[in-house]
Amino acid sequence: MSQFELTILGCSSATPTSTRNPTAQLLQVAGRFFLIDCGEATQIQLRKYKIKFQRIDHIFISHLHGDHYLGLMGLLSSMHLLGRTKDLWIYCPAGLDEIIQVQLKHSATVLNYPIHFRFHDAGKQELLFEDEKVSVQTILLNHRIPCCGFLFREKKKPRSLNREALELHKVPISALHGIKNGDDFISEDGTRIPNAVLAHAEIPAYSYAYCSDTCYDDSVIRQVTGVDLLYHESTFTEEMKKRAKETYHSTAQEAATVALKADVKKLLLGHYSARYTDLSPLLREAQAVFPNSELAHEGLRINVERLSQLAH
Amino acid sequence: MSQFELTILGCSSATPTSTRNPTAQLLQVAGRFFLIDCGEATQIQLRKYKIKFQRIDHIFISHLHGDHYLGLMGLLSSMHLLGRTKDLWIYCPAGLDEIIQVQLKHSATVLNYPIHFRFHDAGKQELLFEDEKVSVQTILLNHRIPCCGFLFREKKKPRSLNREALELHKVPISALHGIKNGDDFISEDGTRIPNAVLAHAEIPAYSYAYCSDTCYDDSVIRQVTGVDLLYHESTFTEEMKKRAKETYHSTAQEAATVALKADVKKLLLGHYSARYTDLSPLLREAQAVFPNSELAHEGLRINVERLSQLAH
Repeated sequence: MSQFELTILGCSSATPTSTRNPTAQLLQVAGRFFLIDCGEATQIQLRKYKIKFQRIDHIFISHLHGDHYLGLMGLLSSMHLLGRTKDLWIYCPAGLDEIIQVQLKHSATVLNYPIHFRFHDAGKQELLFEDEKVSVQTILLNHRIPCCGFLFREKKKPRSLNREALELHKVPISALHGIKNGDDFISEDGTRIPNAVLAHAEIPAYSYAYCSDTCYDDSVIRQVTGVDLLYHESTFTEEMKKRAKETYHSTAQEAATVALKADVKKLLLGHYSARYTDLSPLLREAQAVFPNSELAHEGLRINVERLSQLAH
Repeated sequence: MSQFELTILGCSSATPTSTRNPTAQLLQVAGRFFLIDCGEATQIQLRKYKIKFQRIDHIFISHLHGDHYLGLMGLLSSMHLLGRTKDLWIYCPAGLDEIIQVQLKHSATVLNYPIHFRFHDAGKQELLFEDEKVSVQTILLNHRIPCCGFLFREKKKPRSLNREALELHKVPISALHGIKNGDDFISEDGTRIPNAVLAHAEIPAYSYAYCSDTCYDDSVIRQVTGVDLLYHESTFTEEMKKRAKETYHSTAQEAATVALKADVKKLLLGHYSARYTDLSPLLREAQAVFPNSELAHEGLRINVERLSQLAH
C-alpha cells in the first residue's frame, strides 16, 4: 500500500446529487489515517471503499457548513457501537463540540472512547498535529464563515545506508547519524567519501494541501507553494463568477491560477455545484491555465508518491 | 400513481452497512408526502428513488437515536438551498429543535421557510395530524429512550354516485349527501331503493402502522389491530433474544406475533442488525408465525391498495 495516498469520498458542494456525495477525503500517510471533512454519509462511503474507519484517529473539519461535517455524528456513533475505546482527535472550529454534545445528550449516549477537540483559529496559521513522520498545519482561507484548509507534510526521511560501502570505508557507528542526514565522511587518511557513496538517494517527503471552501485569495498561494498535490475547490465555471464571489467560492480558472502561481505539481478540482452534471467545462477551464489538473470523483485514489515520480 | 404507497429508503438498524441505509420511509397518501424517520443520507436516497423532496410537508421522527434523524439537518439545508419557502411541520420528541437550532447557529444559516415543531409525548397516544383525507396518530412503543410509532389512516371515502340510477329514480340533490355515505333512498311512492343501486361500492380506506424501535410489548397489538400494513422492527432472530431484550429491540418472531395477534393484512420487517448479511433467517422466522411477512429493502415500494385488493 502506498505511504501517501488520498481517497476521495465525496466532492459535491452544499447539495449532494444522485452521483456525488458531500465533501470527505481520507489521506493515508505512513500508516496514519487522516479524515478530512466528513459530509453526510461519509461512514457509508468509507464502507463502500473498504476503508477500516476505526483506524482513523484524527479528523480535520474545515468549517461548520453542513456539507463538511454532517456525517460526523453518525461516524462517531458507529465507532462507539463497533467497540472503539481508543482516543480520537477532532481538529475543528469551536462549536462542533456543542453540536456533538447536544446530540449525545438527547440520545442518552455516553461514548466508550475519549474525544479530544482541538479548535483551530481561522485568523492565524497554526500547527495542529505533529509526530515523527507528519505535520499538519492550517491554511487560512476566505469564506462566508470561519474556514481553514489543511497542509499535510511528511517530515524529511533519513537516507537508508549502503552497508557494503560503510564496511569498505570503515565508517564508525558514531558517524551514521550524520550520513543518514546527508553528510559526507572523512576517513582516517583524510579522504572525503561523498554521501552518495555511503547512502542511498534521499527519499522525497511529500505534501498535500486541502483548500475548501474559499473565494480566490492571493494569500493562499504562498501557503501552498510547492506542494505535490493541491486540492482546491472549484464550485463554478467563470460564467458564474459573480455567484462565486457572492458565495465566497472559486471558479475552476481561479483554482488553476492558485495552482500555477504556487507552482504545485498537480491540481485536483472538487466541490462542484450541483448544477453541473457534465464536469468537463470545469476541467477544460482549469487545464487552460494549469495543464496538470484533474477532476476529483468519488472513489478516486491518488498515490502522491507515484505522481511525484512521474513528474520528476 | 397509487394513492397509498410506501417507499423504503433505509432499513438498517444503528450502524449502516454497505448495502443498507439507516431508517427512512416515504408514505404517499392522497397526494400528501409523509417522511417517516430520516436516517443519515435520506436526502441522497430520496434523489436515488426520484422522489421530489420539496413535496414533503410533514416529517415524523420516532425518537432521537441517530439512525432515525441524522439525515434531517442535511435535508432541511437542501430544501433551503433549493428555494423552499413553504412551511414544514416536524413531529418529533422535544430536543430535536435544539439539535437543529444549534447547527443553524454555527453555520450562520437562517432558513427561508418556517419549521413548526410539534412534540409528541411517548407517554400518551395522540392525534398528531389530521386533514380531510388522512389522520396520523402516535403508537406507544417501549424503547430505551422515549419513542413513538405512527399510525396513518385514510378517512372513510364518500361513495361515488351512479348518475343513471339517480336520474331513473328521480333522486333530489338534497338526498345525495346521505347516499354518498351509504344511505338507501325512499322514493315518492314509498319504494326503498338500496344504496347499492344508487352508488358504487365503498372505496376502502387504508391504514399503515409504523413501529420502530421497540421491544415486544403486548400493548402495541391493540394499537395496530386490523391495519392493512404493519411495519415492525425485527432487529434480531430469536437466537439473539437476550440481546434484543437488553437493547429494547424485537426479534422477527416477536414482530410476527404482533402481526398475528393484531390481525393485520401484511407485515413488513426491517431495522436489521448489521450482523445479518443474509436476511432469510429473519424472514423464515417471521413467516413461521405470520405467513404474509415480507423483508423491507432499499427501494421497495408497496402499493397498499393493491395489497388489500389481493387480500380480499
